Amino acid sequence: MADSNTIRLRVFSLNCWGIRYLSKHCRERYAMIGELLSREEHDIVLLQEVWSEKDFLCLKRKLSSTHPHSHYFKSGVIGSGMATFSRHRIHDAFLYRYSLNGYPYMAHHGDWFGGKAVGMVILNIGRLAAHVYVTHLHAEYCREKDSYLPHRVVQAWELQQFIRHTSSGADLVILAGDLNLHPQDLGNRLLRTYTGLRDSYTETAKFDGCEDGITLIADNPFINPKELCPFEKGIRIDYILYKGSGRVSIQCESLSTTKGSVPDHPFPYSDHEALSADLQLGEQDCALAELVDIVTEARTEVKVGLYCAERMRYTAARTGVMGMALLLLELAIAAVPWLALRADQPFPRASFYLLGVLCFAILITTFLLYIFYTMEVKALQGAEDQMRLAVGSLQERLRGFPLAQPLNRLCRPLDGQDPCPLEPEE
Amino acid sequence: MADSNTIRLRVFSLNCWGIRYLSKHCRERYAMIGELLSREEHDIVLLQEVWSEKDFLCLKRKLSSTHPHSHYFKSGVIGSGMATFSRHRIHDAFLYRYSLNGYPYMAHHGDWFGGKAVGMVILNIGRLAAHVYVTHLHAEYCREKDSYLPHRVVQAWELQQFIRHTSSGADLVILAGDLNLHPQDLGNRLLRTYTGLRDSYTETAKFDGCEDGITLIADNPFINPKELCPFEKGIRIDYILYKGSGRVSIQCESLSTTKGSVPDHPFPYSDHEALSADLQLGEQDCALAELVDIVTEARTEVKVGLYCAERMRYTAARTGVMGMALLLLELAIAAVPWLALRADQPFPRASFYLLGVLCFAILITTFLLYIFYTMEVKALQGAEDQMRLAVGSLQERLRGFPLAQPLNRLCRPLDGQDPCPLEPEE
Repeated sequence: MADSNTIRLRVFSLNCWGIRYLSKHCRERYAMIGELLSREEHDIVLLQEVWSEKDFLCLKRKLSSTHPHSHYFKSGVIGSGMATFSRHRIHDAFLYRYSLNGYPYMAHHGDWFGGKAVGMVILNIGRLAAHVYVTHLHAEYCREKDSYLPHRVVQAWELQQFIRHTSSGADLVILAGDLNLHPQDLGNRLLRTYTGLRDSYTETAKFDGCEDGITLIADNPFINPKELCPFEKGIRIDYILYKGSGRVSIQCESLSTTKGSVPDHPFPYSDHEALSADLQLGEQDCALAELVDIVTEARTEVKVGLYCAERMRYTAARTGVMGMALLLLELAIAAVPWLALRADQPFPRASFYLLGVLCFAILITTFLLYIFYTMEVKALQGAEDQMRLAVGSLQERLRGFPLAQPLNRLCRPLDGQDPCPLEPEE
Repeated sequence: MADSNTIRLRVFSLNCWGIRYLSKHCRERYAMIGELLSREEHDIVLLQEVWSEKDFLCLKRKLSSTHPHSHYFKSGVIGSGMATFSRHRIHDAFLYRYSLNGYPYMAHHGDWFGGKAVGMVILNIGRLAAHVYVTHLHAEYCREKDSYLPHRVVQAWELQQFIRHTSSGADLVILAGDLNLHPQDLGNRLLRTYTGLRDSYTETAKFDGCEDGITLIADNPFINPKELCPFEKGIRIDYILYKGSGRVSIQCESLSTTKGSVPDHPFPYSDHEALSADLQLGEQDCALAELVDIVTEARTEVKVGLYCAERMRYTAARTGVMGMALLLLELAIAAVPWLALRADQPFPRASFYLLGVLCFAILITTFLLYIFYTMEVKALQGAEDQMRLAVGSLQERLRGFPLAQPLNRLCRPLDGQDPCPLEPEE
């Protein structure tokens, strides 16, 4: 595989903030993004928040000569918003929808309607099979009181599962997107430690971009700096991650980000900064004990979410029962004079109907909420079960039991021939 | 790998029809199933329709000595109903929820609430990594006018995608479950041809069971033979499928099914028959041209579904607009006398409220339906896009273009060393 040493791969990632008619200068910004992409000719372009398929098709036309291959991932009510353009042929595409993704009644947050997911495309770069993933996790609206934390942890858990299980045939793995996770957040550590993916910002030999690699910066005119508080300058939540295999190792030669403004243009590409990474060859590593700790921490977080979801479900059920009791009470009050044959109706008719409608609305709402919370509980329980299984298996490995072959692949080259250093008895 | 020649694997699959308080003799049947499993000591047990977690836990206690390892897959409102028991250690579990699974308002069919999915567990059998899948696809309620056909085709598509992408590190692959597909149904051909999975019934050296391997039989006392019409004796919709790899090949030594009645018991284990397969070594094959035809057929089916979903969405939108118009009209009629200052109210109050409630109900219902159909359209479009991509890639392979490595793995041993016979220029 000496020839693979010479392969360079340029990867681009940007959250485009492309809500038609709502995002500022949406059309102009797409035109700027299209220009940038056709000029720079990255090998792989991974975009998020391309909410309108029309905008995707417009970009596709514009990039038809530089990036002849593309895929748009559809999901949920609005779509996943994820799109990929490639100079190399895309052979296969697969989408995994996260089992938890916020609440439909939090319509102003909108995540639920977006159908957040992780998309995978498989492409061949020379003779190498590249599995390229793009994702966009649930946003964090309030860091102090983050009610979506369990959802984001479950999304990170499912993301690492999906990548781990679908990449064992890959020569190289690339993940890019808006993770909505700070570099040391639990979900981020879970993802990187379990999959062995490496962060191009911390690994790069050369960096050109904002201080600390931040991608949501206070200087961006589309951003309200108050929303970034207490992070005055900004936060780093967009990433390009990568790993090699037994056949190929990857190094990040250089990483650059945009810095809020674009020369010769009055505004930036988006409210997020764009990332652009130059990749070459390298190696990977994985610390088992750290992984056990992180999975255990994630499990605790999911349990907290489970407790909340069960409590909410109980509240919905209780409110529903109250609504039902009120309805029955009303019917009883109405029935008494009716049974007493043509006595005067003591209950004003308008109030009667209004109260009836109210009870009915309560019943419907609580029923829908009950169903929704039940689904949330199931999904959280499911993730918790899988995490328990994973912790058990990892702990056994740490104690030096005969190793699971698929788990070996976590920290040893994919050809599966050479024994793992953690396996003394093999 | 000479020692793997001596490994025998016994796999069991049953749709338990375990709806507490609704399925007949549910408790007694679970006791019988528990007895059977602890007596027979299969290596891997894959159950469907274990709807209650309590029943799973009860089985788990009963099988704790024979099958110390187990996993229950949670999903949707009720659950996926899928459970697995194993004599070999389960190292990892992963669940993929199908993007389409019937309609929530078809509550009497119940599939939507079940959260249909495919579950995977990874276990080690000796030194071999076995990826074992269990699934239960959407039921077919009317074969002549099957409105769920596009949903089932998309499920089969996602099933093959999931298996293909998550099994490239596997030494052997086993899939069992109630596919709700006849042997020559499109979804079944799509699944088998794309993944290379082989049907234990057609491949087995020795078969002991009902005629034609049927698993939903007219003789079963829990079955209404009219529902099987026009298939007088019954249909075959439950399967154990398998394939090997470069390291391991599998043969089915024998397959047996139950035959409706159980000796010394007044009724059978379930409304479905149970399958039990003895597996050893064998080979696999894949015909590309056939695969292209099947994917094209599946794509047509999905397009038909897409057309219907779009039409339904349009109808919902139109009804919603009518509801809105009616509401506005009512408000206008009510407003005219109010604007004319204290003129007599020409509109009876009770009718006014009733009509208002009706309009409101129409608006809510059509809004929910619109959202639901939009999600369906997105999922169908997504599957169609992926199928288009797949057909393109397969056709290029047929024409002899340089081959995609991951696609190669489809029909050649997984070690990826020996060139595929379809690749003349490699």
